[in-house]
Amino acid sequence: MSITTNATIADFGGKLLKLKHPSKACNCDMAFNLFIPSSASSSKPAPVLIYLAGLTCTGDNGAEKGFFQAKASEKGIAVAFPDTSPRGMNIEGEDESYDFGSGAGFYVDATKEPWTKGYKMYTYITEELPKAIFSEYKELDKERVSITGHSMGGHGALTLFLKNPGMYKSVSAFAPISNPSNCQWGQKAFSGYFGEDDKQRWSEHDATDLLPKYPGDTDILIDVGTGDNFYKQGQLLPENLEKAAKEAGKGVRVNYRDGYDHSYFFISSFASDHVEHAAKYLLR
Amino acid sequence: MSITTNATIADFGGKLLKLKHPSKACNCDMAFNLFIPSSASSSKPAPVLIYLAGLTCTGDNGAEKGFFQAKASEKGIAVAFPDTSPRGMNIEGEDESYDFGSGAGFYVDATKEPWTKGYKMYTYITEELPKAIFSEYKELDKERVSITGHSMGGHGALTLFLKNPGMYKSVSAFAPISNPSNCQWGQKAFSGYFGEDDKQRWSEHDATDLLPKYPGDTDILIDVGTGDNFYKQGQLLPENLEKAAKEAGKGVRVNYRDGYDHSYFFISSFASDHVEHAAKYLLR
Repeated sequence: MSITTNATIADFGGKLLKLKHPSKACNCDMAFNLFIPSSASSSKPAPVLIYLAGLTCTGDNGAEKGFFQAKASEKGIAVAFPDTSPRGMNIEGEDESYDFGSGAGFYVDATKEPWTKGYKMYTYITEELPKAIFSEYKELDKERVSITGHSMGGHGALTLFLKNPGMYKSVSAFAPISNPSNCQWGQKAFSGYFGEDDKQRWSEHDATDLLPKYPGDTDILIDVGTGDNFYKQGQLLPENLEKAAKEAGKGVRVNYRDGYDHSYFFISSFASDHVEHAAKYLLR
Repeated sequence: MSITTNATIADFGGKLLKLKHPSKACNCDMAFNLFIPSSASSSKPAPVLIYLAGLTCTGDNGAEKGFFQAKASEKGIAVAFPDTSPRGMNIEGEDESYDFGSGAGFYVDATKEPWTKGYKMYTYITEELPKAIFSEYKELDKERVSITGHSMGGHGALTLFLKNPGMYKSVSAFAPISNPSNCQWGQKAFSGYFGEDDKQRWSEHDATDLLPKYPGDTDILIDVGTGDNFYKQGQLLPENLEKAAKEAGKGVRVNYRDGYDHSYFFISSFASDHVEHAAKYLLR
């Protein structure tokens, strides 16, 4: 489980590491980026915010265009930017579409052949990646981890948080796929990774279904742009999550941001707010 | 001189416009990005900071990865991100190297054939682009313009400022080519655009030569990373500019930033400082 450092880049007073490590869950080497603020030390380890990227992205997009480091540096929070799928599995159809296979792991463990070969992003993000990070970087605090994400990664952040009470101190999301069982992206992914009939498993990876079952209160921050074409097309469905929250008495705050689209211009515009949200829980 | 809007993107509370307009100086359509803060209006026009990008870049790099918008939005300053050369001139050799021709206009008006055909970035940036911007956007203030830039664009910012007293309220630069006559990049560019023998013209586009002749004081902010390979290779030579400043009694502050490289991670880390520097002069 050793990590290879491909680059160490001075960034916002801290350092951005471009890393790679062998993953058993994903059956390949997985690249990721890790921002470590200058305040982090083994005697005063920094908490970690995991940012899960969306369809077509790698761990580079958020690190280059997300602007999380500015506020994270100020707050003394590390940020991990993992990849979005295994790479180079040589599975037929893997690279055929932008919304399934490579770059589209959906943060689930596939149960359907041939995707079981490496499409286990759920295990990778919840177990393997943190284990690798915290065994290598003693300046990071494994007891204080939060999670956020964009689009498919927003779905990942919400579901990983809701499925694992206590694992993350807080959760937030940018334009998340909030009810994947009821949108085209989610239906295609879940059909492909789980099969069309295993609706129980679909439900276990759907934030709108999971939220009412979550033990205790939630304080979930979501931003969505009203100019986001995927929102308009019904791929995100934050209203469904809001409705579920209201019925179950859970806390979900969705900010509908006037005119914002689905791009990293949207993410970077509100990245500081999401780091602040995580900081409330990571630093108290 | 009409401007075509290819996209309007909500960004840090304002809007980022992706624009294109016909340029006589460059003999082609020129694309650029323009960030307009929400505070700008025709009754209260916003000042403008021009960011000149470096070799290989377009107007997109700074807009996507520079994060000038965060502080510019806060301060109520617009930011223009022009391209770095004419495009598609079909001049032989135009696309052969990364440091000459396309993406490498060096912010000069070429005097040597065949580059005279469109390589007139000096006229484009100092005359044509501002004329186009201020005739189109009444919410921007043509009386308050500052300039900054990176690498080749840092050279551009410094020389345009020093050659045109009063045109810009302030200047700053990230890892600028500070003495082009004495480095490989500059020598190649000036030989190509001016000819090897016209050393007078070389000198007229060299910040280190121009600084002593500038009428009045200067307050020039420069950041350079000590881990910048181009700095180490002697392409930037900020020490030469510092020496000229000291001898001439001009103000140049060069911050040598420990371990930072030449990338947009470096630029974004200090972008706020450069917007603050411009704000001191644009907003007083």
